[in-house]
Amino acid sequence: MSRVTPRRPSGFVEYLPNQQVVLQSMLDTIRSVYETYGFLPIETPALELKEVLLAKGGGETEKEVYQFSKGSKDYAMHYDLTVPLARYVAEHENELTFPFKRYQMQKVWRAERAQKGRFREFYQCDADVIGSYSAAHDGELLALICDTFRALDIGAFTVRLSNRKLLGGLLESIGLAQSSTDIFRAIDKLEKIGSDEVIKLLKTAGCSSDEASLILNFVNITGANSEILKKLHGFNIKNDIYTKGLEEINQVLDVATQLGVPAESYIIDLRIIRGLDYYTGTVYETVLNNHPEFGSVCSGGRYDDLCKYYTKTSLPGVGVSIGLTRLFSALLEHNIVTTTGNLDVVYIVNHGSGARDWALKVASDMRASGLKTQVDFEERDMASQLKYANKLGMRHVIVIGENEASEKKVTLKNMQSGDQELLAVDTAINHIAT
Amino acid sequence: MSRVTPRRPSGFVEYLPNQQVVLQSMLDTIRSVYETYGFLPIETPALELKEVLLAKGGGETEKEVYQFSKGSKDYAMHYDLTVPLARYVAEHENELTFPFKRYQMQKVWRAERAQKGRFREFYQCDADVIGSYSAAHDGELLALICDTFRALDIGAFTVRLSNRKLLGGLLESIGLAQSSTDIFRAIDKLEKIGSDEVIKLLKTAGCSSDEASLILNFVNITGANSEILKKLHGFNIKNDIYTKGLEEINQVLDVATQLGVPAESYIIDLRIIRGLDYYTGTVYETVLNNHPEFGSVCSGGRYDDLCKYYTKTSLPGVGVSIGLTRLFSALLEHNIVTTTGNLDVVYIVNHGSGARDWALKVASDMRASGLKTQVDFEERDMASQLKYANKLGMRHVIVIGENEASEKKVTLKNMQSGDQELLAVDTAINHIAT
Repeated sequence: MSRVTPRRPSGFVEYLPNQQVVLQSMLDTIRSVYETYGFLPIETPALELKEVLLAKGGGETEKEVYQFSKGSKDYAMHYDLTVPLARYVAEHENELTFPFKRYQMQKVWRAERAQKGRFREFYQCDADVIGSYSAAHDGELLALICDTFRALDIGAFTVRLSNRKLLGGLLESIGLAQSSTDIFRAIDKLEKIGSDEVIKLLKTAGCSSDEASLILNFVNITGANSEILKKLHGFNIKNDIYTKGLEEINQVLDVATQLGVPAESYIIDLRIIRGLDYYTGTVYETVLNNHPEFGSVCSGGRYDDLCKYYTKTSLPGVGVSIGLTRLFSALLEHNIVTTTGNLDVVYIVNHGSGARDWALKVASDMRASGLKTQVDFEERDMASQLKYANKLGMRHVIVIGENEASEKKVTLKNMQSGDQELLAVDTAINHIAT
Repeated sequence: MSRVTPRRPSGFVEYLPNQQVVLQSMLDTIRSVYETYGFLPIETPALELKEVLLAKGGGETEKEVYQFSKGSKDYAMHYDLTVPLARYVAEHENELTFPFKRYQMQKVWRAERAQKGRFREFYQCDADVIGSYSAAHDGELLALICDTFRALDIGAFTVRLSNRKLLGGLLESIGLAQSSTDIFRAIDKLEKIGSDEVIKLLKTAGCSSDEASLILNFVNITGANSEILKKLHGFNIKNDIYTKGLEEINQVLDVATQLGVPAESYIIDLRIIRGLDYYTGTVYETVLNNHPEFGSVCSGGRYDDLCKYYTKTSLPGVGVSIGLTRLFSALLEHNIVTTTGNLDVVYIVNHGSGARDWALKVASDMRASGLKTQVDFEERDMASQLKYANKLGMRHVIVIGENEASEKKVTLKNMQSGDQELLAVDTAINHIAT
């Protein structure tokens, strides 16, 4: 028989069990926080009809979509969870109640150029509120990001917060509304390419030198959030969009404060644009203070019309997304999360007459009390069994020999300290569980 | 702007949030039971290299695989979790410790003919032990199936259990080893096509009339498990494979008994073959007693050499799989699981001066105590807010008006009974949580 070398396509990551356990616990943590904010789960198919998924058409995205034909159908694998959400909401419009708060945690696929830290398959963890113009939701999502990252416990973080109506309103007030898309794109690149290059881009977009300076000074406003707000009011820009942006960002901060979000967790930063064209108000990015090189680990914003390619109903919304696979891989690499072996699994080694039967009874009791329990069935001596438990990084081992079997007791061995004690089953369970 | 009708490809199911909540809780239940048996999680990529995934080659399967080329690579979407497991184990052979117990709960894709109850995307929930010949693992997996279905609480079930070495040994003992594949295939069809048709198939496979009768009588043995075992011993078949099969099935029953599995949960049934060629010992199917028409809801068995297409290391194993999407859809359709609305989410309606701020403070406290909480931000009157809560099926509503805001209390309203009470926040949280 001919054999094939077992391997994966490049850009597709998978983890060993002791790593997967940690990733799973992060998924559980995120889900649990999303749920406390009243978000409900949905999942959408990995495959969509190509003409539906790519209804917007064109752009860089389409090249990165895995797509193919089968039978008479053209399929495309979803490359994010936002477009499938738009399709879902439009398709089930009459079955849903708005505002509709949904979370969705699934893998997405993008045929990106393979490079370190880039994955072609990765988890996105999204939460969106659909069908409300209230910026109070934007404030709640700021609180949700902060609660989530506090719960993940991976170090200090800062949410960088802006509202695109501010720069948009300023541009309209000085007659540059026509060029706003190009100007937003230029500012989006500011941190990557620096002021000089951005000024060139702004001029190409039609700004005079004075206008370019004005714009750069505007987005570079710094200070505590209250100071920035004061300055933003102080500009005294007479423009409805600007005024609306100011109202919204005020409301976001107000809601966050009422919800008790620590002030040091977020900062207004007008350089935050988010490249995507569809954001129209609040935008968020999140950085780990000690690892800015990870880039934004949670981003999102407000959009005016989620489902415009699918229904004439206008459905505004706001959402955030965590790109978990990239974050998790970076955390692993920097030892910010550590894999500690199968600490949770209690291993029952057993040897000698009657030991197997008693081991099974003990396992059954332990499982009934919720302990993760594995019994050795390999007909090997105690030393080999202990070596296996050690190799897998198990913390607690139950030793059952003829003596324990006949006395209906167990020896509980702590693999770290080496201590062991003969105990009743109940007592052993309590020791392990606490 | 041109619009596209929002729709999915046929065979791809998705659920409304109140249904997804139930599916999610079933996934959680299954995971939790699998973990108590010491299984550890892995996930493998949705896309594999085609030449690796289809290393076995040929067969019906290949037609049902979604596959395509992108760049210079040929990709295939996984159609089960067993072949990816084999690839994973072979690829990481030196990083894993055997026996290796893994569970894996992911969607798989098959381009099956679209029909009722058939899905082209569905969840499989697999648990496998790799690298052990001990049939005690087969017994534990029987217990795991029973624990899982008891925990799912979807009605009485029966695991139908056999061991392919029994029929295999019988065939060898009467000189029919050469035809065994065809004979297994014929018996696999027995319940679908009936005895007469199977006899025809057996004759085509080279059996005489007497041999065909003998085989049919053998697989049709009925009775309590102990009676069947007695009969199997009584045949006194002198064949090593048969003897090994008998030892294994004895051990499976013994382990299940020691683990306290209720005897009525499983039955030896030699008609169970499982079509797949790679099973070599224990095989399982599971039926819901009140809904045999659902077919097998959890199946699996023992195989001798999982990774033979990827490594020369011989890795025997045993595993089971729940096809959850199909089961869940059938349960929904028959109202065996019911969707009850967003019962868990506490809705905070608020209206009047100071109400919003106090609502946010209350929400923050509720979330900190683990309650799922949503605040109304839609600037609408109380009646509209209550209507929304009612429509979404929320059980608990917190009403905050000017009075509650100034007194720093809340009115807790039970949406089913209509009862309401003015309470301190702590007291309300306790009422809801209990």
